[in-house]
Amino acid sequence: MTIRAGLVGLGKIARDQHLPAIARTDGIELVAVASRNAQEEGLNNYPDLDAMLAGEADMDAVILCQPPQVRYQAARQAILAGKHVFLEKPPGATVSEVEALIALAGAQGVTLYASWHSRHAAAVAQAKAWMASRAIRRIDIQWREDVRHWHPGQPWIWEAGGFGVFDPGINALSILTEIVPEPVTMLSARLEVPENKDAPIGAALSMATASGAAVEALFDWRQTGPQTWDIAVETANGSLLLSEGGNTLRLDGEVQIKAPDEEYPAMYRRFVGLVADRAIDADIAPLRLVADAFLCGRHCPTTAFDD
Amino acid sequence: MTIRAGLVGLGKIARDQHLPAIARTDGIELVAVASRNAQEEGLNNYPDLDAMLAGEADMDAVILCQPPQVRYQAARQAILAGKHVFLEKPPGATVSEVEALIALAGAQGVTLYASWHSRHAAAVAQAKAWMASRAIRRIDIQWREDVRHWHPGQPWIWEAGGFGVFDPGINALSILTEIVPEPVTMLSARLEVPENKDAPIGAALSMATASGAAVEALFDWRQTGPQTWDIAVETANGSLLLSEGGNTLRLDGEVQIKAPDEEYPAMYRRFVGLVADRAIDADIAPLRLVADAFLCGRHCPTTAFDD
Repeated sequence: MTIRAGLVGLGKIARDQHLPAIARTDGIELVAVASRNAQEEGLNNYPDLDAMLAGEADMDAVILCQPPQVRYQAARQAILAGKHVFLEKPPGATVSEVEALIALAGAQGVTLYASWHSRHAAAVAQAKAWMASRAIRRIDIQWREDVRHWHPGQPWIWEAGGFGVFDPGINALSILTEIVPEPVTMLSARLEVPENKDAPIGAALSMATASGAAVEALFDWRQTGPQTWDIAVETANGSLLLSEGGNTLRLDGEVQIKAPDEEYPAMYRRFVGLVADRAIDADIAPLRLVADAFLCGRHCPTTAFDD
Repeated sequence: MTIRAGLVGLGKIARDQHLPAIARTDGIELVAVASRNAQEEGLNNYPDLDAMLAGEADMDAVILCQPPQVRYQAARQAILAGKHVFLEKPPGATVSEVEALIALAGAQGVTLYASWHSRHAAAVAQAKAWMASRAIRRIDIQWREDVRHWHPGQPWIWEAGGFGVFDPGINALSILTEIVPEPVTMLSARLEVPENKDAPIGAALSMATASGAAVEALFDWRQTGPQTWDIAVETANGSLLLSEGGNTLRLDGEVQIKAPDEEYPAMYRRFVGLVADRAIDADIAPLRLVADAFLCGRHCPTTAFDD
């Protein structure tokens, strides 16, 4: 049976990734979209989730792609209406919101999928398998990109609860918490916040694995030219470098995998399987590390930034 | 068998509360203290935890009263040395630190107690029982105190990871998460940070219970004169007011309990019981709400504050 889905928040990520991925996935069909400003031809268009829930009685699932600040109330409403829910990352503006959604979805017997697209990058599974049997000595993350290119016209991302540079940075943390075979702890953080914004444009994080290996991360949104999404791991038995956001893998310097980005189709295949099982997949570990970085982090004002 | 305990961090809270409470508790005895600056007559004095662990081979437990920024490494070291650990609140500078300690204590078979002293205030248990059978409509928290009175000469409290006004505010959240019979979710926050400090002096928090009742909290460190530590609950069947930090209870305006503060002796009785069972008691719910407030909270600069 094909899942009849409605999507809320027809912005850049929805058009760039969700719509094409859904079109390529068996078992799910997009029937409606809800958006204040945008419309999509060939689908039922609604101004908001309320209207979509009222108009699409036999819709099975709701895909939430709005800014994180408004995602909790929408997800709560959809779950209470008996719909399965697919959350774009980050799954909420706070950890306790996601915990509440997990409990609610469990009580309602619907699927909740807190998606982490970078975990579906081509080389992540092999990196995880390689690390499972090795003693980690040190991990270095460099996640540097050009916010003007990736987030044009998204003022919410600079507001409180919009995550700032942690919007891409949480992708690195989602890979980290997937491939490291033990919990990762946030120890200290430095957040660079432009004078004219509420969210950081840069961050330096000091973390540790449970056995004490250092994990250092640098996030920066001011990188022009080539973009950098790298995770380098040194172990007692060799080194690993994940680059291109998890789509390229080098072991001891030799390329093992170099594949194009197929993350969203993989996530939709996962979602179809979760709905078949009425299962919940909502790992809060990446979001908890971000909350911890804001909790212990020093806010350092930096020059105003015009995006 | 009496627990032989060593205490690290001989500051105000240790002298005001821990030392007298331990002296009054059967089953535990203070044998040593570690402090960079202070000494205690009649006990073995050490400059730091390293020296104390080396010098007190038959010490059973370590009580950690230092600033939260340095508590994780100390707790980790004590647990790895096979000691039971009592953590003053907050139990760490980040949630992931406390999660890591819980896992480590479980693996080592030692007790970990993340203490929340306000949960042991005289009227909290009765408030919890009263609320268990009532539908909550609204909760208002006012936690206003004079930082100059309660935290003289504690620069760490104003630094990143020092929590600022959330140091007392987390006491309110520890009571809230104890008495409300469902999870509480952080929705938005406003943090007032003095120009010359890194941590907030005031905060306004908007939360909700899982069933959707509003929970509003105001924390302020600038209150002179009478101090206010109140939690007011409106339900479908009457109202509750916890004041004096949980030591006074009014139901529908009538005083039910008005008792002196006996929180720390109650905690040490609890710790002795936990150690007898090699049990872990470390609820992260209050700390998670604080991390969430920093994550979603808007930082609002306010006038410099001289403490």
